[in-house]
Amino acid sequence: METLGYYNGEIGLLEEVRIPMNDRACWFGDGVYDVAISVDHRIFALEEHLDRFFTNAALLYMVPTITKPQLAELLHTLVHKVDNPSQFVYWQMTRGTALRSHAFPEAAAPNLWVMIKPFILPDIYQKIQLITVEDTRFLHCNIKTLNLLPNVLASEKAKQAGCTEAVFYRGNRVTEGSHTNVHILKEGILHTAPRDNLILPGISRAHIITHCGKLNIPVLEKPFTREELFEADEIMISSASTFCMSASHIDGRQVGGKAPELLRTLQEALLDEFHRFTHRR
Amino acid sequence: METLGYYNGEIGLLEEVRIPMNDRACWFGDGVYDVAISVDHRIFALEEHLDRFFTNAALLYMVPTITKPQLAELLHTLVHKVDNPSQFVYWQMTRGTALRSHAFPEAAAPNLWVMIKPFILPDIYQKIQLITVEDTRFLHCNIKTLNLLPNVLASEKAKQAGCTEAVFYRGNRVTEGSHTNVHILKEGILHTAPRDNLILPGISRAHIITHCGKLNIPVLEKPFTREELFEADEIMISSASTFCMSASHIDGRQVGGKAPELLRTLQEALLDEFHRFTHRR
Repeated sequence: METLGYYNGEIGLLEEVRIPMNDRACWFGDGVYDVAISVDHRIFALEEHLDRFFTNAALLYMVPTITKPQLAELLHTLVHKVDNPSQFVYWQMTRGTALRSHAFPEAAAPNLWVMIKPFILPDIYQKIQLITVEDTRFLHCNIKTLNLLPNVLASEKAKQAGCTEAVFYRGNRVTEGSHTNVHILKEGILHTAPRDNLILPGISRAHIITHCGKLNIPVLEKPFTREELFEADEIMISSASTFCMSASHIDGRQVGGKAPELLRTLQEALLDEFHRFTHRR
Repeated sequence: METLGYYNGEIGLLEEVRIPMNDRACWFGDGVYDVAISVDHRIFALEEHLDRFFTNAALLYMVPTITKPQLAELLHTLVHKVDNPSQFVYWQMTRGTALRSHAFPEAAAPNLWVMIKPFILPDIYQKIQLITVEDTRFLHCNIKTLNLLPNVLASEKAKQAGCTEAVFYRGNRVTEGSHTNVHILKEGILHTAPRDNLILPGISRAHIITHCGKLNIPVLEKPFTREELFEADEIMISSASTFCMSASHIDGRQVGGKAPELLRTLQEALLDEFHRFTHRR
Protein backbone atom coordinates (compact mmCIF):
# COMPACT_ATOMS: atom_id res chain seq x y z
CA MET A 1 0.00 0.00 0.00
CA GLU A 2 0.92 3.67 -0.48
CA THR A 3 0.05 4.84 3.03
CA LEU A 4 -0.49 3.07 6.31
CA GLY A 5 -2.41 3.74 9.48
CA TYR A 6 -1.90 1.73 12.66
CA TYR A 7 -3.95 2.01 15.84
CA ASN A 8 -3.39 -0.34 18.79
CA GLY A 9 -2.68 -3.29 16.51
CA GLU A 10 -5.19 -2.52 13.76
CA ILE A 11 -3.62 -1.80 10.38
CA GLY A 12 -5.11 -0.32 7.22
CA LEU A 13 -4.78 2.32 4.55
CA LEU A 14 -4.23 5.60 6.40
CA GLU A 15 -7.27 7.09 4.66
CA GLU A 16 -9.46 4.25 5.93
CA VAL A 17 -8.37 3.66 9.52
CA ARG A 18 -10.80 4.87 12.17
CA ILE A 19 -10.17 5.49 15.83
CA PRO A 20 -12.55 5.79 18.80
CA MET A 21 -14.20 9.17 19.25
CA ASN A 22 -13.33 8.93 22.95
CA ASP A 23 -9.57 8.78 22.33
CA ARG A 24 -8.29 11.77 24.31
CA ALA A 25 -6.60 13.09 21.16
CA CYS A 26 -10.10 14.04 19.99
CA TRP A 27 -11.16 16.19 22.96
CA PHE A 28 -7.89 17.49 24.39
CA GLY A 29 -5.01 16.83 21.98
CA ASP A 30 -3.74 14.81 24.93
CA GLY A 31 -0.70 13.08 23.46
CA VAL A 32 2.83 13.26 22.12
CA TYR A 33 4.28 12.30 18.76
CA ASP A 34 7.49 11.99 16.81
CA VAL A 35 8.50 11.76 13.16
CA ALA A 36 11.41 10.21 11.29
CA ILE A 37 12.30 9.55 7.67
CA SER A 38 12.62 6.04 6.28
CA VAL A 39 14.42 5.10 3.08
CA ASP A 40 14.42 1.52 1.83
CA HIS A 41 12.92 0.43 5.14
CA ARG A 42 15.70 1.95 7.22
CA ILE A 43 14.60 4.70 9.61
CA PHE A 44 17.08 7.54 10.01
CA ALA A 45 18.14 8.56 13.55
CA LEU A 46 15.42 6.32 14.99
CA GLU A 47 17.13 5.83 18.38
CA GLU A 48 17.21 9.58 18.95
CA HIS A 49 13.59 10.03 17.88
CA LEU A 50 12.50 7.19 20.18
CA ASP A 51 14.47 8.63 23.10
CA ARG A 52 12.75 11.99 22.62
CA PHE A 53 9.35 10.33 22.26
CA PHE A 54 9.69 8.42 25.53
CA THR A 55 11.03 11.53 27.27
CA ASN A 56 8.04 13.51 26.00
CA ALA A 57 5.56 10.86 27.15
CA ALA A 58 7.14 10.98 30.61
CA LEU A 59 6.93 14.81 30.68
CA LEU A 60 3.15 14.41 30.28
CA TYR A 61 3.04 11.62 32.90
CA MET A 62 2.11 8.97 30.34
CA VAL A 63 3.29 5.43 31.04
CA PRO A 64 3.89 3.59 27.76
CA THR A 65 2.75 0.00 27.48
CA ILE A 66 5.49 -0.69 24.94
CA THR A 67 9.27 -0.58 25.33
CA LYS A 68 11.65 1.32 23.06
CA PRO A 69 12.96 -1.85 21.35
CA GLN A 70 9.38 -3.10 20.84
CA LEU A 71 8.36 0.20 19.26
CA ALA A 72 11.46 0.19 17.03
CA GLU A 73 10.58 -3.33 15.90
CA LEU A 74 6.95 -2.36 15.25
CA LEU A 75 7.98 0.65 13.15
CA HIS A 76 10.38 -1.48 11.11
CA THR A 77 7.64 -4.07 10.54
CA LEU A 78 5.25 -1.34 9.40
CA VAL A 79 7.62 0.42 6.98
CA HIS A 80 8.03 -2.93 5.23
CA LYS A 81 4.30 -2.99 4.51
CA VAL A 82 4.41 0.24 2.49
CA ASP A 83 5.41 0.22 -1.17
CA ASN A 84 7.05 3.61 -1.47
CA PRO A 85 10.78 3.42 -0.65
CA SER A 86 10.87 6.93 0.91
CA GLN A 87 8.52 7.34 3.82
CA PHE A 88 7.46 9.89 6.39
CA VAL A 89 7.07 7.77 9.53
CA TYR A 90 4.96 9.34 12.27
CA TRP A 91 3.89 7.82 15.57
CA GLN A 92 2.01 9.14 18.56
CA MET A 93 0.83 8.08 21.99
CA THR A 94 -2.40 9.41 23.47
CA ARG A 95 -3.58 9.17 27.07
CA GLY A 96 -6.16 6.49 26.42
CA THR A 97 -9.86 6.23 25.68
CA ALA A 98 -12.45 7.40 28.19
CA LEU A 99 -15.52 9.58 28.63
CA ARG A 100 -14.45 13.23 28.36
CA SER A 101 -13.16 14.60 31.66
CA HIS A 102 -10.10 16.82 31.95
CA ALA A 103 -8.19 14.92 34.65
CA PHE A 104 -6.40 11.71 33.67
CA PRO A 105 -8.73 8.71 33.27
CA GLU A 106 -8.35 6.17 36.06
CA ALA A 107 -8.11 2.94 34.14
CA ALA A 108 -7.20 3.81 30.56
CA ALA A 109 -4.04 2.54 28.90
CA PRO A 110 -2.30 4.80 26.37
CA ASN A 111 -3.13 4.33 22.69
CA LEU A 112 -0.40 3.86 20.11
CA TRP A 113 -0.82 5.35 16.65
CA VAL A 114 1.42 5.13 13.59
CA MET A 115 0.94 6.74 10.20
CA ILE A 116 3.18 6.36 7.20
CA LYS A 117 2.95 8.40 4.02
CA PRO A 118 5.25 8.93 1.03
CA PHE A 119 8.15 11.30 1.54
CA ILE A 120 10.07 13.21 -1.11
CA LEU A 121 13.46 14.54 -0.07
CA PRO A 122 13.44 18.26 -0.92
CA ASP A 123 16.30 19.93 -2.78
CA ILE A 124 17.87 21.26 0.40
CA TYR A 125 20.07 23.67 -1.55
CA GLN A 126 17.18 25.68 -2.94
CA LYS A 127 16.53 28.99 -1.20
CA ILE A 128 13.30 29.42 0.71
CA GLN A 129 11.25 32.41 1.86
CA LEU A 130 10.10 32.95 5.43
CA ILE A 131 7.71 35.17 7.31
CA THR A 132 7.89 36.15 10.97
CA VAL A 133 4.89 35.60 13.24
CA GLU A 134 4.35 36.43 16.90
CA ASP A 135 4.82 33.34 19.07
CA THR A 136 1.50 32.91 20.86
CA ARG A 137 2.11 29.28 21.82
CA PHE A 138 2.02 27.78 25.29
CA LEU A 139 5.07 27.36 27.53
CA HIS A 140 5.56 23.63 26.82
CA CYS A 141 7.16 23.99 23.38
CA ASN A 142 9.94 21.63 24.45
CA ILE A 143 7.39 18.77 24.27
CA LYS A 144 6.21 17.47 20.91
CA THR A 145 2.49 17.48 21.72
CA LEU A 146 -0.73 17.37 19.69
CA ASN A 147 -1.61 20.94 20.76
CA LEU A 148 -0.52 22.56 17.51
CA LEU A 149 -3.14 25.19 16.68
CA PRO A 150 -0.80 28.21 16.75
CA ASN A 151 1.60 26.23 14.55
CA VAL A 152 -1.24 25.47 12.13
CA LEU A 153 -2.27 29.15 11.98
CA ALA A 154 1.32 30.32 11.47
CA SER A 155 1.93 27.72 8.77
CA GLU A 156 -1.19 28.78 6.92
CA LYS A 157 -0.08 32.42 7.15
CA ALA A 158 3.27 31.47 5.60
CA LYS A 159 1.52 29.54 2.84
CA GLN A 160 -0.80 32.47 2.10
CA ALA A 161 2.29 34.68 1.79
CA GLY A 162 3.88 32.21 -0.65
CA CYS A 163 6.51 31.25 1.93
CA THR A 164 7.83 27.90 3.16
CA GLU A 165 7.84 28.50 6.87
CA ALA A 166 6.82 30.93 9.61
CA VAL A 167 9.44 31.96 12.17
CA PHE A 168 8.09 32.69 15.65
CA TYR A 169 9.32 35.54 17.82
CA ARG A 170 8.43 36.11 21.46
CA GLY A 171 9.10 39.70 22.43
CA ASN A 172 12.25 40.35 20.44
CA ARG A 173 13.60 36.81 20.77
CA VAL A 174 13.42 34.43 17.80
CA THR A 175 12.27 31.06 19.12
CA GLU A 176 11.79 28.60 16.25
CA GLY A 177 9.71 27.87 13.15
CA SER A 178 6.15 26.52 13.11
CA HIS A 179 7.60 23.05 12.44
CA THR A 180 11.34 23.61 12.27
CA ASN A 181 14.19 24.97 14.37
CA VAL A 182 15.82 28.21 13.22
CA HIS A 183 19.55 28.98 13.23
CA ILE A 184 21.76 31.74 11.91
CA LEU A 185 25.35 31.94 10.78
CA LYS A 186 27.15 35.17 11.69
CA GLU A 187 30.88 35.77 11.33
CA GLY A 188 31.59 32.06 11.18
CA ILE A 189 29.53 31.19 14.29
CA LEU A 190 26.32 29.16 14.37
CA HIS A 191 23.75 30.81 16.63
CA THR A 192 20.84 28.69 17.76
CA ALA A 193 18.21 29.11 20.48
CA PRO A 194 19.04 27.34 23.75
CA ARG A 195 17.15 24.23 24.85
CA ASP A 196 14.47 25.63 27.11
CA ASN A 197 10.68 25.42 27.23
CA LEU A 198 10.30 27.75 24.22
CA ILE A 199 11.81 25.48 21.57
CA LEU A 200 11.66 21.84 20.59
CA PRO A 201 15.04 20.13 20.90
CA GLY A 202 15.22 19.07 17.25
CA ILE A 203 17.12 15.95 16.24
CA SER A 204 18.39 17.74 13.11
CA ARG A 205 19.37 20.66 15.33
CA ALA A 206 21.43 18.23 17.43
CA HIS A 207 23.04 16.79 14.29
CA ILE A 208 23.89 20.28 13.04
CA ILE A 209 25.60 21.04 16.36
CA THR A 210 27.54 17.77 16.16
CA HIS A 211 28.65 18.53 12.60
CA CYS A 212 29.70 22.04 13.64
CA GLY A 213 31.94 20.41 16.26
CA LYS A 214 33.57 18.18 13.66
CA LEU A 215 33.95 21.08 11.19
CA ASN A 216 35.36 23.47 13.83
CA ILE A 217 32.40 25.85 13.49
CA PRO A 218 31.78 27.49 16.90
CA VAL A 219 28.21 27.13 18.21
CA LEU A 220 26.45 29.65 20.44
CA GLU A 221 23.31 28.22 22.09
CA LYS A 222 21.88 31.56 23.15
CA PRO A 223 18.69 33.47 22.31
CA PHE A 224 19.03 35.71 19.27
CA THR A 225 16.84 38.61 18.22
CA ARG A 226 14.77 39.49 15.16
CA GLU A 227 17.39 42.11 14.22
CA GLU A 228 20.10 39.45 14.36
CA LEU A 229 17.92 37.21 12.19
CA PHE A 230 17.56 39.85 9.48
CA GLU A 231 21.25 40.80 9.61
CA ALA A 232 22.68 37.27 9.72
CA ASP A 233 25.09 35.99 7.09
CA GLU A 234 22.84 32.98 6.55
CA ILE A 235 19.45 31.98 7.99
CA MET A 236 18.64 28.29 8.25
CA ILE A 237 15.70 26.14 9.23
CA SER A 238 16.06 22.48 10.18
CA SER A 239 13.82 19.49 10.80
CA ALA A 240 13.73 15.74 10.22
CA SER A 241 12.09 16.26 6.82
CA THR A 242 13.79 19.48 5.61
CA PHE A 243 17.28 18.69 7.00
CA CYS A 244 18.74 22.18 6.69
CA MET A 245 17.53 24.77 4.22
CA SER A 246 18.45 28.45 3.97
CA ALA A 247 16.40 31.57 3.37
CA SER A 248 16.72 34.27 0.72
CA HIS A 249 13.85 36.41 2.03
CA ILE A 250 12.11 37.10 5.33
CA ASP A 251 8.91 39.15 5.33
CA GLY A 252 9.74 40.05 1.72
CA ARG A 253 13.16 41.48 2.59
CA GLN A 254 16.26 39.98 1.02
CA VAL A 255 18.42 38.31 3.69
CA GLY A 256 21.47 36.08 4.08
CA GLY A 257 23.61 34.87 1.20
CA LYS A 258 26.78 36.18 2.84
CA ALA A 259 28.36 32.87 3.87
CA PRO A 260 27.45 30.45 1.07
CA GLU A 261 30.50 28.22 1.47
CA LEU A 262 30.12 27.68 5.19
CA LEU A 263 26.41 27.00 4.68
CA ARG A 264 27.12 24.50 1.90
CA THR A 265 29.72 22.69 3.99
CA LEU A 266 27.22 22.21 6.77
CA GLN A 267 24.41 21.13 4.45
CA GLU A 268 26.67 18.63 2.69
CA ALA A 269 27.77 17.16 6.01
CA LEU A 270 24.14 16.59 7.00
CA LEU A 271 23.08 15.12 3.69
CA ASP A 272 26.20 12.97 3.52
CA GLU A 273 25.41 11.45 6.91
CA PHE A 274 21.87 10.71 5.75
CA HIS A 275 23.02 9.17 2.47
CA ARG A 276 25.64 7.05 4.18
CA PHE A 277 22.95 5.71 6.52
CA THR A 278 20.52 4.96 3.73
CA HIS A 279 23.26 3.33 1.58
CA ARG A 280 22.41 5.63 -1.26
CA ARG A 281 26.04 6.48 -1.89
CA MET B 1 -29.35 4.89 24.68
CA GLU B 2 -27.38 6.31 27.63
CA THR B 3 -24.76 8.17 25.58
CA LEU B 4 -24.59 9.30 21.98
CA GLY B 5 -21.85 10.02 19.49
CA TYR B 6 -22.49 11.80 16.20
CA TYR B 7 -19.98 12.34 13.41
CA ASN B 8 -20.97 13.92 10.10
CA GLY B 9 -24.36 12.21 10.12
CA GLU B 10 -23.32 8.88 11.64
CA ILE B 11 -24.90 8.15 15.01
CA GLY B 12 -24.08 5.51 17.61
CA LEU B 13 -23.27 4.85 21.23
CA LEU B 14 -20.53 7.32 22.16
CA GLU B 15 -18.27 4.44 23.24
CA GLU B 16 -18.63 2.81 19.81
CA VAL B 17 -18.43 5.66 17.31
CA ARG B 18 -15.19 5.85 15.34
CA ILE B 19 -13.81 8.76 13.38
CA PRO B 20 -11.16 8.93 10.64
CA MET B 21 -7.56 8.96 11.83
CA ASN B 22 -6.93 11.82 9.39
CA ASP B 23 -9.45 14.16 11.05
CA ARG B 24 -7.29 17.15 11.97
CA ALA B 25 -8.42 16.81 15.59
CA CYS B 26 -6.11 13.79 15.75
CA TRP B 27 -2.86 15.45 14.63
CA PHE B 28 -3.30 19.11 15.59
CA GLY B 29 -6.31 19.56 17.89
CA ASP B 30 -7.49 21.74 15.02
CA GLY B 31 -11.03 22.57 16.06
CA VAL B 32 -13.42 24.38 18.37
CA TYR B 33 -16.16 23.10 20.65
CA ASP B 34 -18.93 24.17 22.96
CA VAL B 35 -20.98 22.57 25.73
CA ALA B 36 -24.47 23.13 27.11
CA ILE B 37 -26.76 21.35 29.57
CA SER B 38 -30.01 19.75 28.47
CA VAL B 39 -32.88 18.84 30.79
CA ASP B 40 -35.96 17.05 29.46
CA HIS B 41 -34.72 17.70 25.91
CA ARG B 42 -34.47 21.47 26.38
CA ILE B 43 -30.96 22.89 26.02
CA PHE B 44 -30.17 25.77 28.37
CA ALA B 45 -28.77 29.01 26.88
CA LEU B 46 -28.33 27.29 23.53
CA GLU B 47 -28.48 30.49 21.46
CA GLU B 48 -25.57 31.96 23.40
CA HIS B 49 -23.53 28.77 23.14
CA LEU B 50 -24.18 28.58 19.41
CA ASP B 51 -23.21 32.24 18.95
CA ARG B 52 -19.93 31.63 20.74
CA PHE B 53 -19.31 28.44 18.76
CA PHE B 54 -19.72 30.17 15.40
CA THR B 55 -17.60 33.11 16.59
CA ASN B 56 -14.87 30.69 17.64
CA ALA B 57 -14.98 28.82 14.32
CA ALA B 58 -14.57 32.16 12.51
CA LEU B 59 -11.63 33.12 14.76
CA LEU B 60 -9.87 30.00 13.46
CA TYR B 61 -10.92 30.74 9.86
CA MET B 62 -13.24 27.73 9.69
CA VAL B 63 -16.26 28.03 7.43
CA PRO B 64 -19.13 25.93 8.83
CA THR B 65 -21.20 23.91 6.38
CA ILE B 66 -24.18 24.15 8.71
CA THR B 67 -26.16 27.19 9.85
CA LYS B 68 -26.94 28.07 13.45
CA PRO B 69 -30.64 27.09 13.17
CA GLN B 70 -29.67 23.80 11.48
CA LEU B 71 -27.21 22.99 14.26
CA ALA B 72 -29.80 23.89 16.92
CA GLU B 73 -32.27 21.56 15.22
CA LEU B 74 -29.70 18.77 15.00
CA LEU B 75 -28.83 19.08 18.70
CA HIS B 76 -32.52 18.97 19.65
CA THR B 77 -33.02 15.88 17.49
CA LEU B 78 -30.04 14.19 19.12
CA VAL B 79 -30.98 14.93 22.75
CA HIS B 80 -34.31 13.21 22.05
CA LYS B 81 -32.45 10.00 21.21
CA VAL B 82 -30.85 9.75 24.65
CA ASP B 83 -32.75 8.21 27.57
CA ASN B 84 -31.33 10.19 30.45
CA PRO B 85 -33.35 13.38 31.08
CA SER B 86 -30.28 15.40 32.18
CA GLN B 87 -27.57 15.58 29.57
CA PHE B 88 -24.16 17.10 28.96
CA VAL B 89 -24.37 18.16 25.30
CA TYR B 90 -21.02 18.75 23.62
CA TRP B 91 -20.35 19.57 19.99
CA GLN B 92 -17.22 20.42 18.03
CA MET B 93 -16.10 21.36 14.56
CA THR B 94 -12.72 20.30 13.18
CA ARG B 95 -10.95 21.58 10.10
CA GLY B 96 -11.65 18.53 7.98
CA THR B 97 -9.96 15.30 7.03
CA ALA B 98 -6.71 15.28 5.08
CA LEU B 99 -3.18 13.90 5.03
CA ARG B 100 -1.23 15.55 7.85
CA SER B 101 0.22 18.92 6.83
CA HIS B 102 0.17 21.98 9.10
CA ALA B 103 -1.37 24.52 6.70
CA PHE B 104 -5.11 24.33 6.04
CA PRO B 105 -6.11 21.52 3.64
CA GLU B 106 -7.22 22.81 0.24
CA ALA B 107 -10.40 20.90 -0.32
CA ALA B 108 -11.54 19.59 3.05
CA ALA B 109 -14.91 20.52 4.54
CA PRO B 110 -15.16 20.86 8.35
CA ASN B 111 -16.31 17.84 10.33
CA LEU B 112 -19.15 18.11 12.82
CA TRP B 113 -19.04 16.08 16.02
CA VAL B 114 -21.58 15.78 18.83
CA MET B 115 -21.34 13.79 22.04
CA ILE B 116 -23.98 13.47 24.70
CA LYS B 117 -23.47 11.91 28.11
CA PRO B 118 -25.50 11.89 31.34
CA PHE B 119 -25.26 15.01 33.49
CA ILE B 120 -25.92 15.31 37.20
CA LEU B 121 -26.52 18.82 38.49
CA PRO B 122 -24.08 19.34 41.38
CA ASP B 123 -25.17 20.78 44.71
CA ILE B 124 -23.96 24.26 43.88
CA TYR B 125 -24.18 25.35 47.53
CA GLN B 126 -21.52 22.92 48.71
CA LYS B 127 -18.10 24.45 49.31
CA ILE B 128 -15.23 23.37 47.08
CA GLN B 129 -11.46 23.41 47.41
CA LEU B 130 -9.12 24.94 44.83
CA ILE B 131 -5.43 24.96 44.02
CA THR B 132 -3.51 27.64 42.13
CA VAL B 133 -1.37 26.69 39.14
CA GLU B 134 0.85 28.78 36.89
CA ASP B 135 -0.93 29.60 33.64
CA THR B 136 1.31 28.15 30.93
CA ARG B 137 -1.37 28.17 28.24
CA PHE B 138 -1.19 29.83 24.84
CA LEU B 139 -2.47 33.33 24.08
CA HIS B 140 -5.73 32.20 22.45
CA CYS B 141 -7.61 31.35 25.65
CA ASN B 142 -10.58 33.40 24.42
CA ILE B 143 -11.25 30.61 21.88
CA LYS B 144 -12.71 27.28 23.02
CA THR B 145 -10.26 25.06 21.14
CA LEU B 146 -9.20 21.42 21.35
CA ASN B 147 -5.69 22.45 22.50
CA LEU B 148 -6.29 21.68 26.16
CA LEU B 149 -3.15 19.99 27.44
CA PRO B 150 -2.24 22.60 30.09
CA ASN B 151 -5.87 22.45 31.26
CA VAL B 152 -5.64 18.65 31.48
CA LEU B 153 -2.40 18.83 33.49
CA ALA B 154 -3.81 21.48 35.85
CA SER B 155 -7.03 19.52 36.34
CA GLU B 156 -5.09 16.39 37.20
CA LYS B 157 -2.99 18.37 39.68
CA ALA B 158 -6.18 19.60 41.36
CA LYS B 159 -7.57 16.07 41.50
CA GLN B 160 -4.32 14.74 43.00
CA ALA B 161 -4.60 17.43 45.68
CA GLY B 162 -8.20 16.39 46.44
CA CYS B 163 -9.52 19.65 44.96
CA THR B 164 -12.30 20.43 42.50
CA GLU B 165 -10.56 22.91 40.26
CA ALA B 166 -7.21 24.55 39.48
CA VAL B 167 -7.07 28.34 39.25
CA PHE B 168 -4.51 29.70 36.78
CA TYR B 169 -2.37 32.75 37.46
CA ARG B 170 -0.14 34.49 34.94
CA GLY B 171 2.44 36.59 36.71
CA ASN B 172 0.40 37.86 39.64
CA ARG B 173 -2.86 38.06 37.70
CA VAL B 174 -5.56 35.44 38.24
CA THR B 175 -6.90 34.45 34.82
CA GLU B 176 -9.45 31.63 35.15
CA GLY B 177 -9.86 28.00 36.12
CA SER B 178 -8.81 24.97 34.06
CA HIS B 179 -12.43 24.64 32.87
CA THR B 180 -14.26 27.45 34.69
CA ASN B 181 -14.16 31.21 35.07
CA VAL B 182 -13.14 32.61 38.44
CA HIS B 183 -14.71 35.57 40.23
CA ILE B 184 -14.45 37.15 43.64
CA LEU B 185 -16.80 39.15 45.85
CA LYS B 186 -15.14 41.95 47.84
CA GLU B 187 -16.99 44.63 49.78
CA GLY B 188 -20.18 44.03 47.85
CA ILE B 189 -18.52 44.18 44.40
CA LEU B 190 -18.12 41.31 41.95
CA HIS B 191 -14.61 41.28 40.48
CA THR B 192 -14.07 39.23 37.33
CA ALA B 193 -11.27 39.11 34.78
CA PRO B 194 -11.90 41.24 31.68
CA ARG B 195 -12.70 39.66 28.32
CA ASP B 196 -9.32 39.49 26.63
CA ASN B 197 -7.24 36.72 25.07
CA LEU B 198 -6.38 35.23 28.50
CA ILE B 199 -9.85 34.06 29.48
CA LEU B 200 -12.79 32.33 27.87
CA PRO B 201 -15.90 34.52 27.80
CA GLY B 202 -18.06 32.09 29.76
CA ILE B 203 -21.81 31.99 29.21
CA SER B 204 -22.35 31.48 32.96
CA ARG B 205 -19.99 34.40 33.56
CA ALA B 206 -22.23 36.55 31.30
CA HIS B 207 -25.33 35.37 33.19
CA ILE B 208 -23.70 36.21 36.53
CA ILE B 209 -22.94 39.73 35.27
CA THR B 210 -26.55 40.12 34.08
CA HIS B 211 -27.89 38.95 37.45
CA CYS B 212 -25.57 41.35 39.25
CA GLY B 213 -27.12 44.16 37.20
CA LYS B 214 -30.63 43.10 38.24
CA LEU B 215 -29.59 42.69 41.88
CA ASN B 216 -27.72 46.01 42.01
CA ILE B 217 -24.39 44.31 42.68
CA PRO B 218 -21.60 46.41 41.07
CA VAL B 219 -19.33 44.50 38.67
CA LEU B 220 -15.67 45.28 38.05
CA GLU B 221 -14.33 43.61 34.90
CA LYS B 222 -10.67 44.14 35.72
CA PRO B 223 -7.73 41.81 36.35
CA PHE B 224 -7.35 40.82 39.99
CA THR B 225 -4.32 39.36 41.74
CA ARG B 226 -3.56 36.21 43.71
CA GLU B 227 -3.50 38.27 46.90
CA GLU B 228 -6.98 39.62 46.12
CA LEU B 229 -8.13 36.04 45.49
CA PHE B 230 -6.94 34.85 48.89
CA GLU B 231 -8.34 37.91 50.69
CA ALA B 232 -11.72 38.04 48.93
CA ASP B 233 -14.98 37.84 50.84
CA GLU B 234 -16.07 34.98 48.57
CA ILE B 235 -14.33 33.10 45.73
CA MET B 236 -16.48 31.64 42.99
CA ILE B 237 -16.01 29.47 39.92
CA SER B 238 -18.55 29.31 37.13
CA SER B 239 -19.24 27.20 34.04
CA ALA B 240 -22.14 25.71 32.11
CA SER B 241 -22.00 22.55 34.23
CA THR B 242 -21.05 23.97 37.67
CA PHE B 243 -23.17 27.19 37.44
CA CYS B 244 -21.57 29.04 40.32
CA MET B 245 -19.84 27.34 43.24
CA SER B 246 -17.78 28.90 46.01
CA ALA B 247 -14.51 27.90 47.64
CA SER B 248 -13.66 27.25 51.27
CA HIS B 249 -9.95 26.55 50.67
CA ILE B 250 -7.27 27.52 48.17
CA ASP B 251 -3.91 25.73 48.31
CA GLY B 252 -5.02 24.36 51.69
CA ARG B 253 -5.64 27.82 53.19
CA GLN B 254 -9.09 28.71 54.45
CA VAL B 255 -10.62 31.48 52.32
CA GLY B 256 -13.90 33.33 51.73
CA GLY B 257 -17.03 32.79 53.78
CA LYS B 258 -17.30 36.49 54.53
CA ALA B 259 -20.30 37.37 52.33
CA PRO B 260 -22.54 34.27 52.48
CA GLU B 261 -25.80 36.12 51.90
CA LEU B 262 -24.66 38.00 48.82
CA LEU B 263 -23.19 34.78 47.45
CA ARG B 264 -26.41 32.88 48.09
CA THR B 265 -28.52 35.58 46.44
CA LEU B 266 -26.42 35.33 43.29
CA GLN B 267 -26.42 31.52 43.26
CA GLU B 268 -30.17 31.39 43.75
CA ALA B 269 -30.73 33.84 40.90
CA LEU B 270 -28.67 31.62 38.56
CA LEU B 271 -30.32 28.39 39.60
CA ASP B 272 -33.75 29.98 39.50
CA GLU B 273 -33.22 31.07 35.91
CA PHE B 274 -32.12 27.54 35.00
CA HIS B 275 -35.09 25.92 36.77
CA ARG B 276 -37.56 28.30 35.18
CA PHE B 277 -36.15 27.40 31.77
CA THR B 278 -36.28 23.68 32.41
CA HIS B 279 -39.81 23.88 33.89
CA ARG B 280 -38.59 22.15 36.99
CA ARG B 281 -40.34 24.65 39.23
